[in-house]
Amino acid sequence: MSADTLSEQLVKYLTDVHALEVQALAQMRAAPKIAGPLAGIFTAHREETERHEALIRARLEAHDASPSRIEDLLGALSGKGFVLFARLNPDTPGMLATHAFSYEHMELAAYDLLARVAERAGDTETAEVAKRIRAEEDAMAARIGGFWDRAVDASLAEKGSDDVGKDLDK
Amino acid sequence: MSADTLSEQLVKYLTDVHALEVQALAQMRAAPKIAGPLAGIFTAHREETERHEALIRARLEAHDASPSRIEDLLGALSGKGFVLFARLNPDTPGMLATHAFSYEHMELAAYDLLARVAERAGDTETAEVAKRIRAEEDAMAARIGGFWDRAVDASLAEKGSDDVGKDLDK
Repeated sequence: MSADTLSEQLVKYLTDVHALEVQALAQMRAAPKIAGPLAGIFTAHREETERHEALIRARLEAHDASPSRIEDLLGALSGKGFVLFARLNPDTPGMLATHAFSYEHMELAAYDLLARVAERAGDTETAEVAKRIRAEEDAMAARIGGFWDRAVDASLAEKGSDDVGKDLDK
Repeated sequence: MSADTLSEQLVKYLTDVHALEVQALAQMRAAPKIAGPLAGIFTAHREETERHEALIRARLEAHDASPSRIEDLLGALSGKGFVLFARLNPDTPGMLATHAFSYEHMELAAYDLLARVAERAGDTETAEVAKRIRAEEDAMAARIGGFWDRAVDASLAEKGSDDVGKDLDK
């Protein structure tokens, strides 16, 4: 494969993870309202996610690319079936935790692939950024995974109390 | 919470994981064609997935419930944003691996929650089944995670060779 093609592929991977972070930001804005006892970890991850988005945007700019036309991006990703949290509306902390756990692992995988493509393209800075963000996504996944019992508690409590949780959206 | 409500919740969790397995089966049928070097692990996981679907169906039947009206189920889940592989069509081994890794962790989380709800409902058999299946999903996730380098290789090779991969669907 030519260097040009490898560089093009790297920009494509960067564009993809940037879109994942933009979607993650939308999740972090909505999640605390329905997360029950997990609200704190989503609020904390929102700041991390804002930093990740900025880091990846900078790497795109370093390659003379940009994450503009976000709406187009999101539309394209949606067509590919990415988990769009805005459409999910998981209505209990248990469902929310399940989806968030899955989404963190989508990010983990995307950053693993990005780091490898960046290394092959000789872009060590992007590779380092990818590994650093990956470590934070891993920690977030572990935090969610440590809350199953409380998520079940909250989920059962909500279902057993005339869907109290639904009032949170009003 | 009354025992009845807890039992109803257990059936709901069982119904959800059953739908996840039905969707996983659709994935395992399609995945080998586009998985490149990962084809073997998807083929092997198909047999596991068939067994999981049967085990969960049996637990539903033990609760006088059934996974009938699959189409309705899938429609409802789709509306909730579950990852429907049939719509994804990830077109490279790298994208496929990313989605499969994420999906395995959705299953992991769902079985973790199911095991906990089953234990609270006093249904030790369902709890045991959930833990056994969870271990196999965990192993599958680890197998996918061990293939990032080969997934990148295959992904770059496909992109660099006039989208050879697309011929696989014809």
